[in-house]
Amino acid sequence: MKHALSEASLPRGFRFAGLACGLKKTGALDLAIISSDVPASAAAVFTQNLVVAAPVTISKEHLRASKGRMRAVIVNAGNANCATGASGHAAAWKTVAETAKRLGCTPREILVCSTGVIGVPLAVEKILRSLTKLARNRRPSARSFAELSLAICTTDTRPKTAGASFKMARKRIHMVGCAKGAGMIHPNLATTLAFVVTDAAIAPALLQKTLGDVCSRTFNCISIDGDSSTNDTLAVFANGAAGAPAIRAGSAAHRAFRAALEDVCRSLALQIVADGEGAQRVIEIEVRGAKTEAAARRIAGTVATSLLVKTAFAGGDPNWGRVFAAAGRSGVAFDPARADIKMAGIPVLRRGSPLNFNERVASNRLLAEHVPIVLDLHAGSASARYWTCDLTAEYVRINASYRT
Amino acid sequence: MKHALSEASLPRGFRFAGLACGLKKTGALDLAIISSDVPASAAAVFTQNLVVAAPVTISKEHLRASKGRMRAVIVNAGNANCATGASGHAAAWKTVAETAKRLGCTPREILVCSTGVIGVPLAVEKILRSLTKLARNRRPSARSFAELSLAICTTDTRPKTAGASFKMARKRIHMVGCAKGAGMIHPNLATTLAFVVTDAAIAPALLQKTLGDVCSRTFNCISIDGDSSTNDTLAVFANGAAGAPAIRAGSAAHRAFRAALEDVCRSLALQIVADGEGAQRVIEIEVRGAKTEAAARRIAGTVATSLLVKTAFAGGDPNWGRVFAAAGRSGVAFDPARADIKMAGIPVLRRGSPLNFNERVASNRLLAEHVPIVLDLHAGSASARYWTCDLTAEYVRINASYRT
Repeated sequence: MKHALSEASLPRGFRFAGLACGLKKTGALDLAIISSDVPASAAAVFTQNLVVAAPVTISKEHLRASKGRMRAVIVNAGNANCATGASGHAAAWKTVAETAKRLGCTPREILVCSTGVIGVPLAVEKILRSLTKLARNRRPSARSFAELSLAICTTDTRPKTAGASFKMARKRIHMVGCAKGAGMIHPNLATTLAFVVTDAAIAPALLQKTLGDVCSRTFNCISIDGDSSTNDTLAVFANGAAGAPAIRAGSAAHRAFRAALEDVCRSLALQIVADGEGAQRVIEIEVRGAKTEAAARRIAGTVATSLLVKTAFAGGDPNWGRVFAAAGRSGVAFDPARADIKMAGIPVLRRGSPLNFNERVASNRLLAEHVPIVLDLHAGSASARYWTCDLTAEYVRINASYRT
Repeated sequence: MKHALSEASLPRGFRFAGLACGLKKTGALDLAIISSDVPASAAAVFTQNLVVAAPVTISKEHLRASKGRMRAVIVNAGNANCATGASGHAAAWKTVAETAKRLGCTPREILVCSTGVIGVPLAVEKILRSLTKLARNRRPSARSFAELSLAICTTDTRPKTAGASFKMARKRIHMVGCAKGAGMIHPNLATTLAFVVTDAAIAPALLQKTLGDVCSRTFNCISIDGDSSTNDTLAVFANGAAGAPAIRAGSAAHRAFRAALEDVCRSLALQIVADGEGAQRVIEIEVRGAKTEAAARRIAGTVATSLLVKTAFAGGDPNWGRVFAAAGRSGVAFDPARADIKMAGIPVLRRGSPLNFNERVASNRLLAEHVPIVLDLHAGSASARYWTCDLTAEYVRINASYRT
């Protein structure tokens, strides 16, 4: 679901801005802000990496201290401010404090995010001297939202945005989101930077629970390279500006809200995979017939992170043996003699025995932009999907010289 | 330790042969045999992948049924005979039965190994019609051993051999080994195909235990691409032909034997990493100051399998932040604020804070053939080493078109 931005589809009561403060050597946009005109319910999931960036530490503290009522997100790209010691923590804190002054709120109402290279001191003065202009530039416009979505990018080749809406109590609720990420993508509770804002009214605790549910089926089911970032943050703000009543757990409105959030998050997650460093196509690994959803997800995730699987797809090689071998080392018990595999709709393995298929037809189908792989274990009724991209020589080129 | 082969360094009482039976499209050597003139003590470790090739299933049965007294290994390259259904099992069985006839022993005294593409029916008739010639060609010569070491190769660019010797009861004991593997290398109890033969006398049970010990510090500490093969087999034969008394557990001779076996296995394991598909260099990840050896090995293994780490090394990029980030997602608890990192001898992180270093000097040192990385957690006294190779565009080229 690609979202065409327009003023009408933006949630009310949010303003956005993005500018170039000089952190990216190219001079591209690298500093952005999201703010809500009134305190919004906020929920977020963060990286599970033990090595966490200073802004993640501060954002976690603020989300807790503000009891999920927040005003803004300040974000920079070009430097992750991770493994930067005490001065890195001071830089993130200074950024928050100075932003709060410009917005007239308290520091703990602000989330701070950074993305980029790890272990290089952040030139925080570049951020600080741009904050006044950034705050002044905030607009509730599609153009400003587009600037935000561009400013958070690093090795991304394009911005990623998505939107959804639904009706509740005769009010239309809008939701838009943006995300960045093309490398170091292998989620563990959160991934990358992603922001979703909505004018629904919903309590912080219910928002957090709903976000966790949705995240486990969207952002937590993608992998580009198996590496989890130190800076992952997925945050949702809901400011109630649509004027509809508060969403209650288990209601029809809650189901509609969760479906909208899942649509937005899945769209953003798949856009990230499609823009994976050097990627040509999205591979969807579906495991069916497992005993539990966790088992299905573990197998799907193991296949999705196999270098041999990902390189085979770079060449359109219908090498289903690598899919089978990766499933076999996943740590989940199953009977290989009962397994079926389909690649791009073509049956290649049935009950553990190989089938004849037309290699040329298969290879052509594997060169599509979206390639579905189905592994059926015939052991139960649970299933899971995981999305990854092919691994190309271009991926290596990008990553062999990221810093130099 | 590269082993220079000579007749004098071969263990007594073993014969070898290799020939081309037509499984490799290139016409290269692809069928080989090792035989002991008398029944030898045998020990082996096999892949832990749930999807196992037919020859692995049969070899496991034979090792058990023969109570570790065996005569020969028959091995082919060019086809893994894995996921080939009932006909694949029949093909492996037929190969063993026909080999036993030529050698005048029972089928259960023979190990069978296959390596190559998965899921393609094995053209077993090519093997069967070459067995008489193969058996007749067996020689106790360095040249025959070299043919064996070549015939087991697949995407390897060179054969891998190693040797060691020690004295016991005034007899010199010899040991030689060969291995293959350049892709789908990420061990889990065993890896790849590797064979070691020695003229020491040692009981099968002690040989098996010693092999397990040695394997955990050698073959189980290497990774090329994170994928474990379906066909991994590491087998050791000890035929006692040197005339020395049987080695007893805990004796000085046992320590000498274990040291020799570890020398041979480490040499073969490092030769595999150095010949990793597309690899330019070996990266040695050493984790020090961990609470347990298992924790150290888990962190080292996570760093060694990180795509971002491996691609950075392809470009000689001193991107230590990726090493730190990979350690952080390993699942082992440690305090990042106490960690030190050295890359190629250059301190880059001390107590969690980055150090200034000369990028040009660092980059030059990272372009060496063997690059040591040391991560010290300052949390205990355990350590572990893990070896991997850089990930290059050439790796992708090889694997995007392996079957086609």
